[in-house]
Amino acid sequence: MAVQPLGDRILVKPLDQEQKTKGGIILPDTAQEKPSKGKVVSVGKGKLLDDGKIKELEVKAGDTVLYGRYGGTEINYKGEDLLILRESEVLAIVK
Amino acid sequence: MAVQPLGDRILVKPLDQEQKTKGGIILPDTAQEKPSKGKVVSVGKGKLLDDGKIKELEVKAGDTVLYGRYGGTEINYKGEDLLILRESEVLAIVK
Amino acid sequence: MAVQPLGDRILVKPLDQEQKTKGGIILPDTAQEKPSKGKVVSVGKGKLLDDGKIKELEVKAGDTVLYGRYGGTEINYKGEDLLILRESEVLAIVK
Amino acid sequence: MAVQPLGDRILVKPLDQEQKTKGGIILPDTAQEKPSKGKVVSVGKGKLLDDGKIKELEVKAGDTVLYGRYGGTEINYKGEDLLILRESEVLAIVK
Amino acid sequence: MAVQPLGDRILVKPLDQEQKTKGGIILPDTAQEKPSKGKVVSVGKGKLLDDGKIKELEVKAGDTVLYGRYGGTEINYKGEDLLILRESEVLAIVK
Amino acid sequence: MAVQPLGDRILVKPLDQEQKTKGGIILPDTAQEKPSKGKVVSVGKGKLLDDGKIKELEVKAGDTVLYGRYGGTEINYKGEDLLILRESEVLAIVK
Amino acid sequence: MAVQPLGDRILVKPLDQEQKTKGGIILPDTAQEKPSKGKVVSVGKGKLLDDGKIKELEVKAGDTVLYGRYGGTEINYKGEDLLILRESEVLAIVK
Repeated sequence: MAVQPLGDRILVKPLDQEQKTKGGIILPDTAQEKPSKGKVVSVGKGKLLDDGKIKELEVKAGDTVLYGRYGGTEINYKGEDLLILRESEVLAIVK
Repeated sequence: MAVQPLGDRILVKPLDQEQKTKGGIILPDTAQEKPSKGKVVSVGKGKLLDDGKIKELEVKAGDTVLYGRYGGTEINYKGEDLLILRESEVLAIVK
Repeated sequence: MAVQPLGDRILVKPLDQEQKTKGGIILPDTAQEKPSKGKVVSVGKGKLLDDGKIKELEVKAGDTVLYGRYGGTEINYKGEDLLILRESEVLAIVK
Repeated sequence: MAVQPLGDRILVKPLDQEQKTKGGIILPDTAQEKPSKGKVVSVGKGKLLDDGKIKELEVKAGDTVLYGRYGGTEINYKGEDLLILRESEVLAIVK
Repeated sequence: MAVQPLGDRILVKPLDQEQKTKGGIILPDTAQEKPSKGKVVSVGKGKLLDDGKIKELEVKAGDTVLYGRYGGTEINYKGEDLLILRESEVLAIVK
Repeated sequence: MAVQPLGDRILVKPLDQEQKTKGGIILPDTAQEKPSKGKVVSVGKGKLLDDGKIKELEVKAGDTVLYGRYGGTEINYKGEDLLILRESEVLAIVK
Repeated sequence: MAVQPLGDRILVKPLDQEQKTKGGIILPDTAQEKPSKGKVVSVGKGKLLDDGKIKELEVKAGDTVLYGRYGGTEINYKGEDLLILRESEVLAIVK
């Protein structure tokens, strides 16, 4: 069983902001304008184009992403707090 | 006799939010930002594209979907409270 | 003589909301968010597409439709109160 | 000499609302949401499409049309009060 | 030396509103919703379409045009008060 | 070294509004609705079209242009106050 | 490890505004309307076009860019304050 985001949406598990990555990214949670960080759990089939084709998303399951702090919709799945957001709300992939 | 949603709309039977699924999704109804869950009863023919073609919907009758709590229009059909919403208001399919 | 709606508009005769259909749809008129129900009298030639072609409407004369309670423009034709609305304001066809 | 509406605009002579047509359309002028009725004097060349082509209007000179009460711009031409409005503001043609 | 309007813009010399034309158009300047009248001095190359082509304007230098009273930008050129406006702000050509 | 405006932007050196041109354009700076005048220093590569092609700008370096008084962003380059604005904010070229 | 901006976004290291460039650009930070200056660290794959193709960005890693003072989202990466913004927020490249 799984949550399959629709279209250009992705399912993200937010990461603990206090955690410091190996690369040293620190995202203090006092700053209002700072993005959040999360792990992509699953992604939608892609963005519907004007001609009816589906454009695959750039973000893939497993990616660590930065996204706007106030975007998305929270869900609780198997006891975990997850977030569904559109790929356009993702700022960057941390590689 | 049936209710046939128009274009990219779908007809949904909202599911009891207190109910706990086998997969363990819990959607507490006190949180304002949480989505609702429902069973798709029927779907429209699809989304009208710029070139006049109809793009079939990704959501199918029988799917369990998550959708924004404040979207859609309620109808009462054969004694049941149902909801008509656009596919773009659907966040994810629970499989 | 007739009223020919323009483009993607349709002419609708609103149905008595207290009336109960054979299928049992009840649309109480106290609820603000509930749609209205009506019989389609005539339809426009279709929606003008970007390339200048006309896309025929999905709704046909004779259809029973559900539509948003506050859409459209009322006219009085041969003593009857009718409504002109765009097809995009139609939520569903009751078959 | 004539007034040639530009693009998708039309020139309309508003009809006396108290007048009752043969078909019996009555448009009481106390109701705020009711449309106005008028006779089309002349029409523009058509709507400019995305690809630069001109799409001829559906409304023709001589048509009796219903249009939103608050649309258009009034002009006084040869002593007559006329109205210039876009075809998209026309709700229906009375045939 | 000349003022060349850019794209779909035109340069207009406003005409005296008290002046009565041969055809008898009177545009009283007390009414707020009435359009203004002017003579087209020069026109831009045309409207840029989505595919990069330029669509020539319908309005030509020398035309007498009606336009919305509050549109455009005033300039003073060789002692004359002129107006630069987009062709879309032109309601009609008086022929 | 140079400032290369991006896309459909241009770099403009505002001209002294009191200065009277040979052609006699006077742009009094007390009027709020009057445009400003400037000399184009450099221009972007062009406007990105829907199909990914770049449409060269109509405005060229060296042109004298009229533009809306409140558009653009000021920069100070080599001691000069310059302005970066989009070509769509340019009203006309003074030739 | 790296921060890969998504789509048409770029990652920028803001430059000290007091610093005076060889070319003499001074951007006083008291002026509200003045742009900021920064060095491009990395760029996204490009802008998604209507037909699903990706249009490479005009801005490249290593470029010095001017951008609107209030655009973008700040991140802290390996102890540095960086900014993620869309290419459309970049005004010009300083060459």
